Amino acid sequence: MSSNKRQKTDGANSAADKDITSAMADYRKPDAKTLQTLKDAANRLRIDSIKATSASKSGHPTSCCSAADIISVLFYNTMRYTLSEPRHPSSDRFVLSKGHAAPVLYAAWAQAGLFPREDLLNLRKIDSDLEGHPTPRLNFIDVGTGSLGQGLSVACGMAYTGKYWDKASYRVYCMLGDGESAEGSVWEAMAWGSHYNLDNLVAIFDVNRLGQSEPTALQHEMDTYRKRAEAFGWNTYVVDGHDVEALCKVLHEASSVKGKPSCIIAKTYKGKGIPGVEDEENFHGKPMGDKTDGAIKAIEGLIVGENNVGPQPMTDDAPKVDLSNIKMTQPPSYSLGDKVATRAAYGTGLAKLGQASDRVVAFDADVKNSTFSEKLKKAKPEQFVECFIAEQNMVGVGIGAATRDRAVVFCSTFACFLSRAYDQIRMAAISQSNVNLSGSHVGVSIGEDGPSQMALEDLAMFRAIPGATVFYPSDAVSCERACELAANTKGICYIRTSRPATPVIYGSDEVFEAGKAKVVRKSDSDQVTIVGAAVTLVEATKPAGELEKDANQCARFFNLK
Amino acid sequence: MSSNKRQKTDGANSAADKDITSAMADYRKPDAKTLQTLKDAANRLRIDSIKATSASKSGHPTSCCSAADIISVLFYNTMRYTLSEPRHPSSDRFVLSKGHAAPVLYAAWAQAGLFPREDLLNLRKIDSDLEGHPTPRLNFIDVGTGSLGQGLSVACGMAYTGKYWDKASYRVYCMLGDGESAEGSVWEAMAWGSHYNLDNLVAIFDVNRLGQSEPTALQHEMDTYRKRAEAFGWNTYVVDGHDVEALCKVLHEASSVKGKPSCIIAKTYKGKGIPGVEDEENFHGKPMGDKTDGAIKAIEGLIVGENNVGPQPMTDDAPKVDLSNIKMTQPPSYSLGDKVATRAAYGTGLAKLGQASDRVVAFDADVKNSTFSEKLKKAKPEQFVECFIAEQNMVGVGIGAATRDRAVVFCSTFACFLSRAYDQIRMAAISQSNVNLSGSHVGVSIGEDGPSQMALEDLAMFRAIPGATVFYPSDAVSCERACELAANTKGICYIRTSRPATPVIYGSDEVFEAGKAKVVRKSDSDQVTIVGAAVTLVEATKPAGELEKDANQCARFFNLK
Repeated sequence: MSSNKRQKTDGANSAADKDITSAMADYRKPDAKTLQTLKDAANRLRIDSIKATSASKSGHPTSCCSAADIISVLFYNTMRYTLSEPRHPSSDRFVLSKGHAAPVLYAAWAQAGLFPREDLLNLRKIDSDLEGHPTPRLNFIDVGTGSLGQGLSVACGMAYTGKYWDKASYRVYCMLGDGESAEGSVWEAMAWGSHYNLDNLVAIFDVNRLGQSEPTALQHEMDTYRKRAEAFGWNTYVVDGHDVEALCKVLHEASSVKGKPSCIIAKTYKGKGIPGVEDEENFHGKPMGDKTDGAIKAIEGLIVGENNVGPQPMTDDAPKVDLSNIKMTQPPSYSLGDKVATRAAYGTGLAKLGQASDRVVAFDADVKNSTFSEKLKKAKPEQFVECFIAEQNMVGVGIGAATRDRAVVFCSTFACFLSRAYDQIRMAAISQSNVNLSGSHVGVSIGEDGPSQMALEDLAMFRAIPGATVFYPSDAVSCERACELAANTKGICYIRTSRPATPVIYGSDEVFEAGKAKVVRKSDSDQVTIVGAAVTLVEATKPAGELEKDANQCARFFNLK
Repeated sequence: MSSNKRQKTDGANSAADKDITSAMADYRKPDAKTLQTLKDAANRLRIDSIKATSASKSGHPTSCCSAADIISVLFYNTMRYTLSEPRHPSSDRFVLSKGHAAPVLYAAWAQAGLFPREDLLNLRKIDSDLEGHPTPRLNFIDVGTGSLGQGLSVACGMAYTGKYWDKASYRVYCMLGDGESAEGSVWEAMAWGSHYNLDNLVAIFDVNRLGQSEPTALQHEMDTYRKRAEAFGWNTYVVDGHDVEALCKVLHEASSVKGKPSCIIAKTYKGKGIPGVEDEENFHGKPMGDKTDGAIKAIEGLIVGENNVGPQPMTDDAPKVDLSNIKMTQPPSYSLGDKVATRAAYGTGLAKLGQASDRVVAFDADVKNSTFSEKLKKAKPEQFVECFIAEQNMVGVGIGAATRDRAVVFCSTFACFLSRAYDQIRMAAISQSNVNLSGSHVGVSIGEDGPSQMALEDLAMFRAIPGATVFYPSDAVSCERACELAANTKGICYIRTSRPATPVIYGSDEVFEAGKAKVVRKSDSDQVTIVGAAVTLVEATKPAGELEKDANQCARFFNLK
């Protein structure tokens, strides 16, 4: 886009490597041609979204139309990225938390030149990657969205990684719907993002007033949104979300703010531009049907020039990262029979991995002294991040940090509290995430704290997740190795650890594989198989000697004779 | 407590049936004796909490000590209840969201006279109901707590019930920790409570600055808490949480505020009163051990008078409610072969139950036009409550509304999004709740919306919940009856519904039982059993005719020969 490129040459939007404190002074109002180009692009996004959803006879065109101007400014004026590698480590990130607006996101990449706009008509076809909600099957998507309220945590994880681990100039943008701002996970992320001063992060709320089944609780109470965002520590702007110049300005200003993430509360109208539909109820998730042609005609009438947009160039300053074959700095060192809790061994394994690679990082939800993730914090403090008591956000941040292979991520809390993040875990599988999760204090062996602290559902939870690998180590040796295996296993890994100390039963050189159990006792005359792990293995092996003495008694017990 | 009773006679705290707008003017500072009695009571609560946790060698005495003054004022000056029936329908409710402070709650009831203080030493014993975290095994507890951030949603459900359905004068108090305020579910509840103008609800944040493993993110930033609570629409006070007079005053003022819930942000010190421990790190969840005697002696030195506290009398104005044997106003009325989605039948069943009893109520998370809970809204608008896109809070509110048998509650959303509330559902089982949940859009048959909207984990989720009853109806008739069975079944019930229309296969007079499946096809020569429901039943019965023609083919398919 020529006018944008000129503006960039003026120094306003390009200089990732220059002092951004001067950027605000550098801001110049885009010229009329640039603004018209952005308006035209937004209207093409609308048309493409309407056409695609009408072709598929399903989808959310009105949710796309409210967001179109914001997407246009982001993708063609603000964000720096490359079409040759949409998930380049150095490019700006964009997370569409309101995943049902997928068509406008697909249209944005098509209009930028990544693929032909005609392909958009394959939306939601069974043999197309252009699914109803975005997934990383597409090479320009980092995480699956569509379960609302999760994107900002992911964006926080990306922004933390960019600021503190990559120390690179890429920035992170997240678009949320207003309806989803009712999700508590959004406010977990809002608190966390400001706590860690993520000034490379921008959240944009597309406040289009209307939910699925009725208006949102706050409708267009822009000042309430502002107060909430400010109270949660964000540099906040309220803007007209259909005013491309205003959007250019606040997005530029946001890039110059230090020490705080920025929040843009954009007042928009659902179905913007569609006659008889704009700002009307009862059009959520409905293609335009026989209104399609009229809508397209009306919006086409607003377009002045030719399609002439594309990305701003990025600065390639993210470091190269190698996450392959990370091994613990030292093997396990225990003696057989030593009493060690597997949760303690989890901390030890994590610390040894963290010492082996500064890209092994851990998040915890204020129980690091119970899960023993604090061992990594003590060994490599900069590789540990406290997430406080907000498990949904912790898992979301972990998923974000693991995107684009920037880090090997471990998230830990009491296993029962991972139930809090089950939706995030479910979506992590759809996101093809490699995030590793560890839950401590499993089963009734936690004792006096009672059932609220006992994980009794976690195995069912993780076994229902496609592609997840569940590790339930029986001693300290196998637990350390489970950490090492998890660090090198694709997909979600779950490491289940116990509170009480249990005896070490494997030698330090024992070799383990994901998906393979060990036989710890057997004889030629066995008639039953007992499966156990950790405390249940200890209990199961106790009577083995007794039963060996009386095989008949054993058989009777299991009703075999 | 004589001084308190005098104060009550003065009209300050008693008059549930008088115009509360005059209450603020009525407020008189409690006399010195009353204040000293409350201080003494608080210190006894501290001593009891320290003794009990030292006896059990586990528990959270420091979290009790920060809360003791607040609990004293609540239980002996503010709240109206009766010892003869702690869960009396008309009594004020108290939810200890920071459940790990259970000892101070148990001590409060003991000191009020419900049971001997000596019994507190049975804390956490395996044969005692005084568990590490509160559960309704105790006759003064409404819901289990201990997984943080859930209590305020429950309290919201109680307050909504009190204000709109019971139309009674009881009030609801919820104490939260500051650490747990990082949980997003708290902010879902904050948004919901103000949206519905729950002026009979008071949330008290015990801001003791210290989490489990380190200080909280906000420590003692009282003004940040204030801004957040105000931005979420609450009438907010910041007070010294160890100043009993200040607490009496704000709790009294809160009772006169109309149209808004009230929030008390109390600045406290963890371990308050324990020399060398107060406001120090590293004492979370640790009994005082060899510091016990010194701590008790120090706190005993502050006590001036005898134990002389008890409840304020309540006004018995909650209506009698009968939830037994609620039957649909009409039986199902379909013809065999009619194509009806079970989700649509869910709405029909719900509406028929709602017409039968004004205590059948429903909550939904902005998908009422997809789950069809809107049918109840259309039939009986006052029995439906919109919860917007905040599933954790929706389930918590439902649990709250179902306490003390005030309502038969149904909560619905897409089944996949119930994963968001899995921790609440887990806790609902511990709470012995009768809440009913319905999840729509299960399995891959939802089609084009893609995996983020498909419930593939919900059966594993609910089957792992102790005592849960799972209904997976195969047609409209069985789905309506599943609603009726759920309304009359104790424990958590889950009704799993499908998106596509499937044929009606049962006659309208078919009788169903929880826990019993139906055989829809069989022959004398069957060799395999195929289990299906709804869409999978339709698919499974399709080839049955084929297979009957060739039993051998069928057997080969299943490797039986």
